[in-house]
Amino acid sequence: MGAGTIFREILSRKGLVEAMAGHSPLSAMLAAEAGFDAVWASGFELSALYGVPDVSIVSMTQHLDMTRAMAERSGLPVVADIDTGFGNAINVLYAVEQYERAGAAAIVMEDKSFPKVTSLIAGGRQDMVRIEEFQGKIEAARAARRDKDLVIVARTEALIAGLGQEEALKRARAYEAAGADMILVHSKQKTPDEIEAFVKAWDGRVPIALVPTAYPQMTVARVRELKKVGLLIWGNHAIRAAVGAMRRTFAQIRRDGGIHSVEAEIATVEDVFQLQGMGKVKDDEKRFLR
Amino acid sequence: MGAGTIFREILSRKGLVEAMAGHSPLSAMLAAEAGFDAVWASGFELSALYGVPDVSIVSMTQHLDMTRAMAERSGLPVVADIDTGFGNAINVLYAVEQYERAGAAAIVMEDKSFPKVTSLIAGGRQDMVRIEEFQGKIEAARAARRDKDLVIVARTEALIAGLGQEEALKRARAYEAAGADMILVHSKQKTPDEIEAFVKAWDGRVPIALVPTAYPQMTVARVRELKKVGLLIWGNHAIRAAVGAMRRTFAQIRRDGGIHSVEAEIATVEDVFQLQGMGKVKDDEKRFLR
Amino acid sequence: MGAGTIFREILSRKGLVEAMAGHSPLSAMLAAEAGFDAVWASGFELSALYGVPDVSIVSMTQHLDMTRAMAERSGLPVVADIDTGFGNAINVLYAVEQYERAGAAAIVMEDKSFPKVTSLIAGGRQDMVRIEEFQGKIEAARAARRDKDLVIVARTEALIAGLGQEEALKRARAYEAAGADMILVHSKQKTPDEIEAFVKAWDGRVPIALVPTAYPQMTVARVRELKKVGLLIWGNHAIRAAVGAMRRTFAQIRRDGGIHSVEAEIATVEDVFQLQGMGKVKDDEKRFLR
Amino acid sequence: MGAGTIFREILSRKGLVEAMAGHSPLSAMLAAEAGFDAVWASGFELSALYGVPDVSIVSMTQHLDMTRAMAERSGLPVVADIDTGFGNAINVLYAVEQYERAGAAAIVMEDKSFPKVTSLIAGGRQDMVRIEEFQGKIEAARAARRDKDLVIVARTEALIAGLGQEEALKRARAYEAAGADMILVHSKQKTPDEIEAFVKAWDGRVPIALVPTAYPQMTVARVRELKKVGLLIWGNHAIRAAVGAMRRTFAQIRRDGGIHSVEAEIATVEDVFQLQGMGKVKDDEKRFLR
Repeated sequence: MGAGTIFREILSRKGLVEAMAGHSPLSAMLAAEAGFDAVWASGFELSALYGVPDVSIVSMTQHLDMTRAMAERSGLPVVADIDTGFGNAINVLYAVEQYERAGAAAIVMEDKSFPKVTSLIAGGRQDMVRIEEFQGKIEAARAARRDKDLVIVARTEALIAGLGQEEALKRARAYEAAGADMILVHSKQKTPDEIEAFVKAWDGRVPIALVPTAYPQMTVARVRELKKVGLLIWGNHAIRAAVGAMRRTFAQIRRDGGIHSVEAEIATVEDVFQLQGMGKVKDDEKRFLR
Repeated sequence: MGAGTIFREILSRKGLVEAMAGHSPLSAMLAAEAGFDAVWASGFELSALYGVPDVSIVSMTQHLDMTRAMAERSGLPVVADIDTGFGNAINVLYAVEQYERAGAAAIVMEDKSFPKVTSLIAGGRQDMVRIEEFQGKIEAARAARRDKDLVIVARTEALIAGLGQEEALKRARAYEAAGADMILVHSKQKTPDEIEAFVKAWDGRVPIALVPTAYPQMTVARVRELKKVGLLIWGNHAIRAAVGAMRRTFAQIRRDGGIHSVEAEIATVEDVFQLQGMGKVKDDEKRFLR
Repeated sequence: MGAGTIFREILSRKGLVEAMAGHSPLSAMLAAEAGFDAVWASGFELSALYGVPDVSIVSMTQHLDMTRAMAERSGLPVVADIDTGFGNAINVLYAVEQYERAGAAAIVMEDKSFPKVTSLIAGGRQDMVRIEEFQGKIEAARAARRDKDLVIVARTEALIAGLGQEEALKRARAYEAAGADMILVHSKQKTPDEIEAFVKAWDGRVPIALVPTAYPQMTVARVRELKKVGLLIWGNHAIRAAVGAMRRTFAQIRRDGGIHSVEAEIATVEDVFQLQGMGKVKDDEKRFLR
Repeated sequence: MGAGTIFREILSRKGLVEAMAGHSPLSAMLAAEAGFDAVWASGFELSALYGVPDVSIVSMTQHLDMTRAMAERSGLPVVADIDTGFGNAINVLYAVEQYERAGAAAIVMEDKSFPKVTSLIAGGRQDMVRIEEFQGKIEAARAARRDKDLVIVARTEALIAGLGQEEALKRARAYEAAGADMILVHSKQKTPDEIEAFVKAWDGRVPIALVPTAYPQMTVARVRELKKVGLLIWGNHAIRAAVGAMRRTFAQIRRDGGIHSVEAEIATVEDVFQLQGMGKVKDDEKRFLR
């Protein structure tokens, strides 16, 4: 069963796919362990891991390799954040082919122009492509997938760009008409109001995807009440957890001039061995080394 | 000034280089921010990031790419963990050439046979190469470096392998004789006694490097008292901090059915923007985008 | 249908799979165009492309990436040259999993010790692993494949190492017993006699694979007469053709102080456009760019 | 001495740098062997090697890795074809930093919009960026280089786009004003007339770079007569030689049912060993293996 089929099966069975952001096979494995349904191969998180801004600096090669490794190691369906599709519709054709081969269950493509600027930055420029142009990119994505179950998610940045709900709805409808399997609508309002209004006004047949980073009050329970939402992405909490913890741990070690007092907060070496599968290595050594 | 020269200058000025483990440019940048002198491009941490056991699965290409990115983004001298040198002395020639080009300040090579098994695993096999063979590898490393200041650290696993202090000292002396600039001696005893005994008995001219993971009681202050130690590596605390925090955060989000209560413990989105240099991007956009 | 199944279907239909060596998607595509049944993702050719000796310098990452790209672009079954399996049986488990995911139809693993030295070099050391050890590696390869049709080819270097036909047969039988799907036997004799003698003496059930580089008199017709041979690999003729041609062309341009007289021998720019699929790009631009 | 300094020294000493296109360390080494002054890390050639069209499909990661390997293995100054700079001026900042670190002597950036279409295609769209925008990209490239000798070549596609000589000159002057060290002007006319007219009309101080693919009558001698030209690039003859030869060799092997009659035209295995440095490996094995 292909990854897209698994994703669709979860959606159909549970009504909502809950995805945690990741930036590495390790974070994807921890997402699986915690019981999330899917992992979000986030461009923002990977940019942060590489210490570069999220403005189309990390290359498709780097993101694709990480997506592949996350799919292989975690066993979770991977929702791949392909930004603008790395260029125009011709680039999309190639990108979708590659992400599907890499094991992605879904791809999310946004209607900003390349090179993009990360969505949540205050005062950032947010140039969008024309609706027709983005429809062409959606059609290219559809044409490029070999497995019809690969989920093509069209993401509109209309609210982020301050174009208002009418434009967001107009774009969402146009993207559904072009064949998108799901519409992701993003907002940087500090409350869920804007997003809830959009969801209530949505009259399309395909489900909505949300990324409630700016409005953390939004819960799974509330999303279920709203109906219409098929995918909920916790967009950057893996890297933010890692940054917070490394900062605290490093500062503590510096203060203490030693590691003796950080052991309690951090994972043990044995925990890491277990995640890496050292137990299986020992068994395999017995079985295959002679 | 080359990276090796910077490393030697810190060693000479401070008497001790304190290195934090890293697995990504992000963790290396956080190590710099915390005030560490150097970053340890740890094979164990990178294996964990990729979700695979630390048994020579992560390739030199993957580790080299990460080492390069860590050096570029953090500005810290990088101490590269090249395991066994990825094969024999011929592989070492190529590896050292590549790590030097990638910006490493020092390389640490160990006297286990390829493929290695991670040092701290209980009951793992720990096959070592003959002393003469490893001397050939050290000489290869010296012949391959173009900058005489690249620091070549010979790591002996004699204590890990249970061969005792005499063998450890014998190997350390032989490695110094072959031209190593520093000797790393590793132990998995739960107390510093074994290591302290080694350091006290050490009669060579080159400094010692320590990785006090198993014996967290060892502090910077104690290491300074011991003299003779030039490099102290906190070997895996970046990835362990990250694992612990992702686990806690993911579990909390699952319990809460939302992200509202994890915001306090994790870094903010703005923190991550700052690490990524989004401020500079905005300035550069003003300066160069027309 | 998986790549291994396609390979087996060709073998069953034609009795012999004829594979041309490649070092790039381009060479694999040209092999397909010429009508070969499969492409040999040669470690020797890829090492040469990178300008490094064939002594385990090119990493698994580099070879795997190229194998994947060759499979994707050429459409041919790829026979992946995984040398010694990049370490011991534990490395083999991981390697086979990765090559299968990358789209390989078959993997060829040899009974030399890591790091290897290329087989055809005069006077090179050729250290071999014990039979039992290599059987463990074959069993690991079998355990790691998910598709039972992935073809596991055990390659013995017994003749190359000068151990004689009895040892070669003994090893071949042991490898078949351990589950190899095919036995590759290599020779650097200047005539086919040694290999023909081996094939005639072969009493196993699995087919033989040959790489007649040293003895170019061997033809497809002769191989068919011998029966028992299921795979014929032209081992390095893509890179050798490329080297010869670049050398001649470069020298001619230097002599002429211009490119006017080399046009006849080299492919046209339009030829290259066609290989790259520029026609499809133009069609796709019409279809998807708006 | 940095790679840019070496390039400038050759230019100053010989008055003209003659660069051969390459797509691999191997082709770069053969260019060095033939006596070329530099190697052109061609995006077109690398796209062809990967079997994909030259429309911004090959990622910066792939091209950068190949540029690095070409610089390391050939010892020649590498002139890196960075297309449009992989996005806008922000991407250029990052790209130039990376290419300089990778050992490039010069970077060539063109005034088309991303994603690009290869220049020599008949009837291809050739969208150009505004002059001011490209000036910003040149200034970004200058700001990003750490070595002031890194050569920044501004490439105008004005003639390719059919905008005529006045526009080409206007752009060239504007690019020089923005700080370009050299101006590459490209043409797809079948004769050198258009280019010669441009060179004669050029009134700037910085030298011109030419890529005479479409007009092969142009010779080194003629270029020297024209004065003003500092860099002559044979733009795609490495890959075209390789394609032609692989095609002929593969077809011959198919016709013959064997390799016996191709040996004369292709390089010998020993030739390839020599290029790979197998002689040095044998010496190193004697020196370092024990």
